[in-house]
Amino acid sequence: MIRVLVWNEFHHEKTKEEVKAIYPNGIHNAIADFLRCDDIEVKTATLDDENCGISKEILDETDVLIWWGHMAHNKVPDEVASLVRDAVHSGMGAIFLHSAHHSKPFKKLMGTPCSLTWRESGDSELVWVTDPSHPITQGIDYAISLPHEETYGEPFSIPNPDKVLFIGSYSGGEAFRSGCLFQRGNGQIFYFQPGHETFPTYYIPEVQTVIRNAVRFVAPRYRAEIKCPHVHHFGHPEGYVRVKKA
Amino acid sequence: MIRVLVWNEFHHEKTKEEVKAIYPNGIHNAIADFLRCDDIEVKTATLDDENCGISKEILDETDVLIWWGHMAHNKVPDEVASLVRDAVHSGMGAIFLHSAHHSKPFKKLMGTPCSLTWRESGDSELVWVTDPSHPITQGIDYAISLPHEETYGEPFSIPNPDKVLFIGSYSGGEAFRSGCLFQRGNGQIFYFQPGHETFPTYYIPEVQTVIRNAVRFVAPRYRAEIKCPHVHHFGHPEGYVRVKKA
Amino acid sequence: MIRVLVWNEFHHEKTKEEVKAIYPNGIHNAIADFLRCDDIEVKTATLDDENCGISKEILDETDVLIWWGHMAHNKVPDEVASLVRDAVHSGMGAIFLHSAHHSKPFKKLMGTPCSLTWRESGDSELVWVTDPSHPITQGIDYAISLPHEETYGEPFSIPNPDKVLFIGSYSGGEAFRSGCLFQRGNGQIFYFQPGHETFPTYYIPEVQTVIRNAVRFVAPRYRAEIKCPHVHHFGHPEGYVRVKKA
Amino acid sequence: MIRVLVWNEFHHEKTKEEVKAIYPNGIHNAIADFLRCDDIEVKTATLDDENCGISKEILDETDVLIWWGHMAHNKVPDEVASLVRDAVHSGMGAIFLHSAHHSKPFKKLMGTPCSLTWRESGDSELVWVTDPSHPITQGIDYAISLPHEETYGEPFSIPNPDKVLFIGSYSGGEAFRSGCLFQRGNGQIFYFQPGHETFPTYYIPEVQTVIRNAVRFVAPRYRAEIKCPHVHHFGHPEGYVRVKKA
Repeated sequence: MIRVLVWNEFHHEKTKEEVKAIYPNGIHNAIADFLRCDDIEVKTATLDDENCGISKEILDETDVLIWWGHMAHNKVPDEVASLVRDAVHSGMGAIFLHSAHHSKPFKKLMGTPCSLTWRESGDSELVWVTDPSHPITQGIDYAISLPHEETYGEPFSIPNPDKVLFIGSYSGGEAFRSGCLFQRGNGQIFYFQPGHETFPTYYIPEVQTVIRNAVRFVAPRYRAEIKCPHVHHFGHPEGYVRVKKA
Repeated sequence: MIRVLVWNEFHHEKTKEEVKAIYPNGIHNAIADFLRCDDIEVKTATLDDENCGISKEILDETDVLIWWGHMAHNKVPDEVASLVRDAVHSGMGAIFLHSAHHSKPFKKLMGTPCSLTWRESGDSELVWVTDPSHPITQGIDYAISLPHEETYGEPFSIPNPDKVLFIGSYSGGEAFRSGCLFQRGNGQIFYFQPGHETFPTYYIPEVQTVIRNAVRFVAPRYRAEIKCPHVHHFGHPEGYVRVKKA
Repeated sequence: MIRVLVWNEFHHEKTKEEVKAIYPNGIHNAIADFLRCDDIEVKTATLDDENCGISKEILDETDVLIWWGHMAHNKVPDEVASLVRDAVHSGMGAIFLHSAHHSKPFKKLMGTPCSLTWRESGDSELVWVTDPSHPITQGIDYAISLPHEETYGEPFSIPNPDKVLFIGSYSGGEAFRSGCLFQRGNGQIFYFQPGHETFPTYYIPEVQTVIRNAVRFVAPRYRAEIKCPHVHHFGHPEGYVRVKKA
Repeated sequence: MIRVLVWNEFHHEKTKEEVKAIYPNGIHNAIADFLRCDDIEVKTATLDDENCGISKEILDETDVLIWWGHMAHNKVPDEVASLVRDAVHSGMGAIFLHSAHHSKPFKKLMGTPCSLTWRESGDSELVWVTDPSHPITQGIDYAISLPHEETYGEPFSIPNPDKVLFIGSYSGGEAFRSGCLFQRGNGQIFYFQPGHETFPTYYIPEVQTVIRNAVRFVAPRYRAEIKCPHVHHFGHPEGYVRVKKA
């Protein structure tokens, strides 16, 4: 069973009618609803929860954290962002959606500004698969068609990704690296661009498929805190020896 | 069930007493023996089999090809090497062991000379894990200890690997990128350096663990011939449309 | 002085009036004309020259080879393609333009089919810079605007590039990794997608800027044939020792 | 002229006799001394300088920052580490030496713990070149021989480097990715492992060659603050249009 925690800022849905109309229970619950299945269980947390609904204990029992934030990145305390970063280092998987490119945990993990160009013109977008053999792209044909999305453009100031899985093109002309994989410490990170709050993007079946695939892909295969151990002199042994951690 | 084909040149074992003493049934059978288990079934093929024991039909029914060759790389017909390359492009996994760095299929897939420095001095080697979280390194502590190995040194003229999983150090001083992952087309490729024919390397439990892990990792998740399709004008659709391959 | 050899198939310009009208002296001469400058000297060669105008001696005196081909890839002898591959391994830079993604030398260097989706609908294209700090993108703002191009789409079956420098978006909806860097052996390779023969792409100033930048970037900093040397036992020396190649 | 700032913690040299004996004027001045040449000018700064000798103005006039620190990483204020990180994003080159793997600026730029295994046994080390064609490895044969170094071992918890240029092997058996390149924002970063304070590593000619090469390689080719601009709707223009930044 993969234990997912969907974190959502959950401000837009309470303050803007057009967003509330699309996601009456919040983006987090829309994502939780389509993720729940035989091998995935889901909890949620939001910015207004105590300590953002995040603690070391909660993250220790989370396999995959999904993060959506936009207007209030700076209200997330540095300590919470550091907890998330450290949990990824230990092996927790993380999926950052849409405007979470500018969230504190994502920037701490990337080590770059993670900026881009943007406009809100209601463009349509096609999100193209670059690698049809990857576990995250299974079930998608050439592309995902999004009737409307906020437009994100290059340059996207991220480190060279381990793998670019999707590139998006917008009716207004931009292109963008819309799906990117990174490893940090023992943890896998997937950034996925679709999901502006004013469009019903998370109800589109292929978007749901990608996020579900990603949950299974970034779920930890190994989890251990990273240390900096002082080791003994091992030498080049004469015969076969089993090298053991202390 | 993962269907593995272990290919071995199988000349050393027939012509050199010291090799025959270690691998009386050939390296291929030694590898087959430790791989066979509940989820892995194994066949073998050798250079002296008709057409090297390789055909398109055989590769179509192979999930993972393991390749060991050394003294007779040039006796493998170009057509056979091309069949292997094309099967990897379609999604077949491949594991190239030790001196297979200079085999025709590996060089065709890498696009480089795949050369290195080498000497046979009976050095001991420590093969260190760079990423303890990767599926291929599970079950290995810091390093694998090999009492004797042929020494391989840098520069190893391969393309920048997708991931370096092991680096080896030898008692004689050399260091080497001993475990490297590459994707070519839809197929995953793992190069693993240990396995000189005059040492009983493939009987070492951790070496077996790595190869078994690698079989499971490179086994195809998607298999399809790569084409270059002429597509129709799709345009930026007005509403939600499912993008389908013709 | 950087010595460039521009290789062109030069068939379209002799057989199709619309192409001849755009490139009366051939694409190779159009490229040569804008490249020649204080630090770049240019020669040309074409498919109908003896041995394609390629020999080991000619490549030994070439710093950067630029390759354009489309309808007659298979008329390039395998031996010529191998000469190009080997020269890149030794350090020669190479730039493959547009439909050269399917040329023999490019495929030999990549080790993959290098296929893509395509259509000829006269789309306009915007070629976006992903890394404004790279030497090859200097002089380009956000994007290069191409009034018409042949449309190339993903999946583009290349190995994971060392760096994606440009991604293109087409008015018809596709997105494509339009500028990609690869190292093979000692040589740098740049693939650049613009340049369909029926449009005057190589007269666009920014396209010329990118190709000129690329010539300077892939020009060799080191040139040596790659060997596989048998080395002596070096050991871990007691004191400071200069490690020398034999 | 490349403007280098060598930053050194400069505590060991004041508190430990054995270090003072090797670097009587501090490691920073030893590095500055061998770097100064026709195209490189050098300033220095240390932890005990006001604000660590670092300000935005100073970094704005620095092309390449070299950082050495070990026992007092935590005495560097977070604000200073952030200034360094931001300057790299804008294009400043950075070279982190030896124990600076755990310095605040390096960890902020990597987004990982940057931990490793270590011991101080006076091992000798061979630092092997993996890519003889790279500008940073020019002038080095197969390897650099270091009579004594602190031993660093894998796993080194860094992100997958853009390029591994050196791997070290120690007489005590360890192997380590000793020279690694990363890009963050517009800036290039080189991590180089040699340089423990109790050994005269920075007087070894090849070590000096590598650091001098690295200064020239990471020196900025482009420098601009990274922003997140709101852009206008550009569209797919009808004819050729120059895309300009506002």
